[in-house]
Amino acid sequence: MKTLLKHAHVLTMDDQWTAFEDGYVLTEGGRILEVGSGNMPEADRVVDCRGGILLPGFINLHCHASMVPFRTMGDDCPDRLRRFLFPLENEALTPELVYLGAKYGIGEMLLSGTTTFVDMYYFEDEVARACLETGMRGFLGETVLSQKTPDSESEGGGLKLTEDFLRKYAASDRIRPIVAPHGTTTVSEAALRACEALSEQYGALLTLHASEMDYEMTYFRDQGLTPMSYLGRLGLLSDRLLAAHCIHLTEDDLKQMAAHGVRIAHCIGSNAKAGKGISPIRDAVSRAIPFGFGTDGPSSGNTLSIFDQMRLFAVTQKTRYHDRSLFPAREIVRYATRGGAECLHMEHTLGQIAPGYAADLQVISTDAAHMFPLYNPYSALVYSANASDVDCVMADGNLVVVHHELTQWSLPALREELKRAMSGFYQAAEKYREII
Amino acid sequence: MKTLLKHAHVLTMDDQWTAFEDGYVLTEGGRILEVGSGNMPEADRVVDCRGGILLPGFINLHCHASMVPFRTMGDDCPDRLRRFLFPLENEALTPELVYLGAKYGIGEMLLSGTTTFVDMYYFEDEVARACLETGMRGFLGETVLSQKTPDSESEGGGLKLTEDFLRKYAASDRIRPIVAPHGTTTVSEAALRACEALSEQYGALLTLHASEMDYEMTYFRDQGLTPMSYLGRLGLLSDRLLAAHCIHLTEDDLKQMAAHGVRIAHCIGSNAKAGKGISPIRDAVSRAIPFGFGTDGPSSGNTLSIFDQMRLFAVTQKTRYHDRSLFPAREIVRYATRGGAECLHMEHTLGQIAPGYAADLQVISTDAAHMFPLYNPYSALVYSANASDVDCVMADGNLVVVHHELTQWSLPALREELKRAMSGFYQAAEKYREII
Repeated sequence: MKTLLKHAHVLTMDDQWTAFEDGYVLTEGGRILEVGSGNMPEADRVVDCRGGILLPGFINLHCHASMVPFRTMGDDCPDRLRRFLFPLENEALTPELVYLGAKYGIGEMLLSGTTTFVDMYYFEDEVARACLETGMRGFLGETVLSQKTPDSESEGGGLKLTEDFLRKYAASDRIRPIVAPHGTTTVSEAALRACEALSEQYGALLTLHASEMDYEMTYFRDQGLTPMSYLGRLGLLSDRLLAAHCIHLTEDDLKQMAAHGVRIAHCIGSNAKAGKGISPIRDAVSRAIPFGFGTDGPSSGNTLSIFDQMRLFAVTQKTRYHDRSLFPAREIVRYATRGGAECLHMEHTLGQIAPGYAADLQVISTDAAHMFPLYNPYSALVYSANASDVDCVMADGNLVVVHHELTQWSLPALREELKRAMSGFYQAAEKYREII
Repeated sequence: MKTLLKHAHVLTMDDQWTAFEDGYVLTEGGRILEVGSGNMPEADRVVDCRGGILLPGFINLHCHASMVPFRTMGDDCPDRLRRFLFPLENEALTPELVYLGAKYGIGEMLLSGTTTFVDMYYFEDEVARACLETGMRGFLGETVLSQKTPDSESEGGGLKLTEDFLRKYAASDRIRPIVAPHGTTTVSEAALRACEALSEQYGALLTLHASEMDYEMTYFRDQGLTPMSYLGRLGLLSDRLLAAHCIHLTEDDLKQMAAHGVRIAHCIGSNAKAGKGISPIRDAVSRAIPFGFGTDGPSSGNTLSIFDQMRLFAVTQKTRYHDRSLFPAREIVRYATRGGAECLHMEHTLGQIAPGYAADLQVISTDAAHMFPLYNPYSALVYSANASDVDCVMADGNLVVVHHELTQWSLPALREELKRAMSGFYQAAEKYREII
């Protein structure tokens, strides 16, 4: 079946910044067939974009989608990971909550124009199940942690779950299994090496939290190391490594990351809300280190919207380097699309509107008051737009969002289901009430 | 006529943070009569808020609402004020554009929950006209500038327009005329003193851009001064002074501001996007200097949404001071409401939900994906919500927004009118195309 998206302001995100003010995109079976303007081809189904901005779906490089129940809980609480997040996860997380949370989070991402996401959590098989029920593309990994987790007693359990997961989804179309040790100080050296071995053996992406926490930095500094130099010593630096956060990087870290092809999942919404710092992305880019945006989980960000990341990225980089001209808007839109694809080694399939590329597309309505005028559409996307402006989304060739509504399932109904499933979770949270 | 807003999560913003999970607010003739929960009073008109968050309307302390035509133009261009904004204003601004832009901007603000704004621009009488046609409260001032402006050849012209304006609106209910010299380096000493004299004579607020620009800081530093110490020398520091921006403040500046009761209109969206810096608001607050949020104009911010300011404020202050616990969400909501009221000496009328206060209210829908769960409603407002979540707005007792639509006029129709009026403006902009 051929689908024609017409009357759109198409931003192709190609090398020449080609755009069509009254353009169209023709898709068939999950692929883009044609993009252009003028005489439109025939199609079985036609979507009138009414002048909306049509661009590739966003790529979210770091998420824990299932953490929806934690949203707005203890947002301003220092050291929340150790003080209530880890404990509460261990006490109250169930496979059902992970499944429902993931499905809710995926719905939220689709509604905000994201069509590919990277996720690491527990019971990741439940995340995969939710993902397969939708049009979303998932790079999913079971978290390996050297302490008790909701679904394993030790790092050995996490490694076993990871390998099972790698095998189970090896041939999946929309799910790419990845390896996901939690972080540089929360996983033993042996388990980190085992993760790297799995990543190499299966040709799978490896992702972890790195150079994020103050205590992490202190821990390594005391040994004359940085998190990145430590990972280098263990042999984890490679172009399969997608390092999340990377707030605190030395010149030498950047040099090593560039030399080994390491990629950065930049989570500015999460980092800035926690007051942790602003990653030196300008310096990473000047060394040609690939990077893209991650929302982090819904209790970190607190939204799963890449629009929020784009805007926060713009203002924090410009402020950090005291330079208004740094990262013009259109470059930022490119990092949110092609940049993310490059980090996943998917730049020949995702992140552009061109024949042969995946039919992962979004249409941004210009109806909202803040979307006028549209002198520069990239500027409007970065500085004005928000998740609620996303009108239609096509994921893997399927129209999954039409006029701001999911087509495949009801988010309000899912919310009610999640509310019921959360009662035990909220009960368990009671004992942390003073800090959350 | 009595209006009852029912089934709302009411945040009163009083000293005790009183909230009602299933609460109501009763209004009559522009005033709040009653707030509570349980048995509801009789009313002539009932609005079911369906569990939405009900709070006081936001107060926007710094705006140039009419600058809508400039939005997304040259966002990443350094020194844009002198390179194209001032020149283009002088070449292409007309009273009609100011009127239509103001009306559009006011519509955008009402749609995003703002019910009071401070504005300074040219042809300010046209802004007043637009304001009077809506339910918005405006603190409006004609800009005094010691160079040619769109509506005067010299500062003398601006001063004359200011005095006319002060007289014309002296008795207005919803418009408070103010005195608005442009900035510390763009207005002569004599004109600044004349502005202060007018402000004192008419008991009017005085607002200007201060401690914002790099060149402004250098200019005063070369004379052993700061913008604030210069204003002090001229006798402009008083509790009638609402200083916009205040990015670069010394300890002594803060001391002087506190001693004289100066207020800050903090414009973080504008400041951060320009890479100018982050105002030391924590230090201002520790000296009890009143502050609130300003969006700046729609080409600075780029939205007129106080939600965007709240979130950017949270993340930039926490990052600047490396402290996640700084400014918990509920305090930020208070600055956006009561804080703004205090800056305008309106804290006994605006910014709280209590009997006798103005019926300036907003209801935030919790339908959007990012608004669930609502463990902490203040957190949801600061970290998750955006302008598009505003469901209903009451301004001065009138329901001006119902279910995300203006009730008094059509924004799409206004947009078409503005588009037509902008053709000459876009023609004039052509010569700046390379930088914008």
